[in-house]
Amino acid sequence: MYATQADFVGRSSVAAPSRVEDYIRSTQFDRPTLVLDTDLVADRFHALRAGLGHAAIHYAVKANPERAIVERLIGLGCHFDAASRAEIELCLGLGAHPGSISFGNTVKRASDIAFAHHAGITLFAADAEEEIDKIAAHAPGAEIYIRVVVTASEADWPLSRKFGCAPGKVIPLMRRAREAGLRPVGLSFHVGSQTRHAAMWGATLDEVAGIWAAARAAGFDLDLLNIGGGFPAFYGEEVEPPASYAAEVMRLVAARFGEVPRVMAEPGRGLVAEAGAIAAEVMLVSKKSDTDTHRWVYLDIGKFSGLAETIDEAIRYQFATERDHEPMGPCILAGPSCDSADVLYERRPVLLPLGLTSGDRVIIRNAGAYTSTYASVGFNGFPPLDVVVI
Amino acid sequence: MYATQADFVGRSSVAAPSRVEDYIRSTQFDRPTLVLDTDLVADRFHALRAGLGHAAIHYAVKANPERAIVERLIGLGCHFDAASRAEIELCLGLGAHPGSISFGNTVKRASDIAFAHHAGITLFAADAEEEIDKIAAHAPGAEIYIRVVVTASEADWPLSRKFGCAPGKVIPLMRRAREAGLRPVGLSFHVGSQTRHAAMWGATLDEVAGIWAAARAAGFDLDLLNIGGGFPAFYGEEVEPPASYAAEVMRLVAARFGEVPRVMAEPGRGLVAEAGAIAAEVMLVSKKSDTDTHRWVYLDIGKFSGLAETIDEAIRYQFATERDHEPMGPCILAGPSCDSADVLYERRPVLLPLGLTSGDRVIIRNAGAYTSTYASVGFNGFPPLDVVVI
Repeated sequence: MYATQADFVGRSSVAAPSRVEDYIRSTQFDRPTLVLDTDLVADRFHALRAGLGHAAIHYAVKANPERAIVERLIGLGCHFDAASRAEIELCLGLGAHPGSISFGNTVKRASDIAFAHHAGITLFAADAEEEIDKIAAHAPGAEIYIRVVVTASEADWPLSRKFGCAPGKVIPLMRRAREAGLRPVGLSFHVGSQTRHAAMWGATLDEVAGIWAAARAAGFDLDLLNIGGGFPAFYGEEVEPPASYAAEVMRLVAARFGEVPRVMAEPGRGLVAEAGAIAAEVMLVSKKSDTDTHRWVYLDIGKFSGLAETIDEAIRYQFATERDHEPMGPCILAGPSCDSADVLYERRPVLLPLGLTSGDRVIIRNAGAYTSTYASVGFNGFPPLDVVVI
Repeated sequence: MYATQADFVGRSSVAAPSRVEDYIRSTQFDRPTLVLDTDLVADRFHALRAGLGHAAIHYAVKANPERAIVERLIGLGCHFDAASRAEIELCLGLGAHPGSISFGNTVKRASDIAFAHHAGITLFAADAEEEIDKIAAHAPGAEIYIRVVVTASEADWPLSRKFGCAPGKVIPLMRRAREAGLRPVGLSFHVGSQTRHAAMWGATLDEVAGIWAAARAAGFDLDLLNIGGGFPAFYGEEVEPPASYAAEVMRLVAARFGEVPRVMAEPGRGLVAEAGAIAAEVMLVSKKSDTDTHRWVYLDIGKFSGLAETIDEAIRYQFATERDHEPMGPCILAGPSCDSADVLYERRPVLLPLGLTSGDRVIIRNAGAYTSTYASVGFNGFPPLDVVVI
């Protein structure tokens, strides 16, 4: 049997057995491999849908565009948030309806907007004049929502100012859109990646609600609120179970926005991170000198072959080995490439068994999001992360 | 005519016309594309060889494993530093002699050591007991050099402690190697990436010379000194011309080590960075608010599609546009992905023309190293960096 719903959703035990880990433990791999269980994606989708109520779930395809995941989600009635033409093609090719896809990247190539328009996609994100002009020119009459940059964030990983306009630009952008023949229908924002507790959404929602009210007062009959992503995955620090988390977010939304005809949520990590684990291998364990307190442990996977989210030690993966019952000690964890920047955790070392040795299997847990597609095409001659769906 | 040797080596002008840039300006690309001129690699090889004298140049294949580059270098008598089995296969497949390849990664998969041994490779790097044991088991009788970690560095980008052992471990490791039937023949080190002036090598060479003398005094008849990489490329800050730079490094080596039978140098960036430029395109120019002093300029290439070396703003690429005669202003430069970490330069903004607009061509200069292979397989659905050799 694989992990029960209770294990997966309620997280009764970090070390819960799972079909993914059983598969990894019983299989030989010749390179780092991400093993995915789409049943876990489905379980999580149901949990989020239970909490989100009437909000439409648009899966952020960029988190993991594995065909089996997208196919499974289409079957469940999930909608999609696409970052590029290729992601739109993927969803359409697997049978998604164009009306279920929003083109959520605020930075789009003009020819990709035209492609999306001709494919039947009618909903686009924008945060700048030039983007609105591009959408007006290449997707005439489309619906657009304006992404705003929010300053309040209690997320583990607050986003940079890269996306979104300042609140003061929302109404001018909506005017420009309307004058260009587009239909400004709403707002989007991002509360920050890995927002671990629903209560952390409060300050951000307050801010967005003020902008929403101002736009309506200015005569824009908004009916779409895109609350973005931020739905957390478990990386060692407690997170709330997804159904109650999502329900609480929706309560916070309702308290500020009342009845919004269309609410969209864009979980990526929150849907797929816990649905996969990576099978990795220890390449070398060493000490730089006999007096060093920390070992160096080198894996066959690193920053450039799938673990890009360890940049700045942002995401802290959990590891399991066959020696976890043995004495443990801290180590600096690094990747296999000849790049000195390819160090995963050094500022906050990782506890691993003292007996760990070259050839040992290491399972990297909850690694289903933002891993396979981040892998480089072949840095140092290492192949990209392999993916197996069980 | 393309850039003259004087332009390339002496850098009489940053804005020198080149065959690469002419090609980019006269070509339409549908995605970011690295354009390489192998004549420039050959020019640089000759310049470095002129300076390095009897030292063997082992091209660090990881900098750019493009077949045309490796083929050209084989034809010129260059040797190779390989980071992985795939890089060894690449070189051998293109006709390199096994004796010209060293397996320089200190972190090697046991089966890859065995592969290299059977392919005829006899020279391996190591910095740890376990690695020596692996080499002894899978490449019996091989020559090894011990990589030491040096503390003194004046490089633009000092390396982490990821590679190399402390000086005090060199002799124990050599003993272990000898007892295991290997032939400990020398030392290697890395002065740090992008060491812009030859004089910056002095302190590091002092340190390594002390270790070298101690090992010889302990009865190890060393005959191989691998001085690694660190040979700089031009990214906007003055660097010395390669021939005189290399000659000065060799003078500094000779002053400390005397006559060393075998000296190896491993330029990567220093050989290929200036042999290529990337054709990119502006996707969007925006301001977050009307009072912002800085624009945001979004390109169709970012950290996850080829410009990984902008992490921590480490490498500062130079940009050229068709509007460089127009008024310039600072901007924050970002990539096209929906990842908030995909910002190239923000702490130190970039000067670009104020009139820059969506669709404009941007040339990223001296981007021939550590770009194409760092590109992700398809993050956000964006294709990897394309490569064209002219």
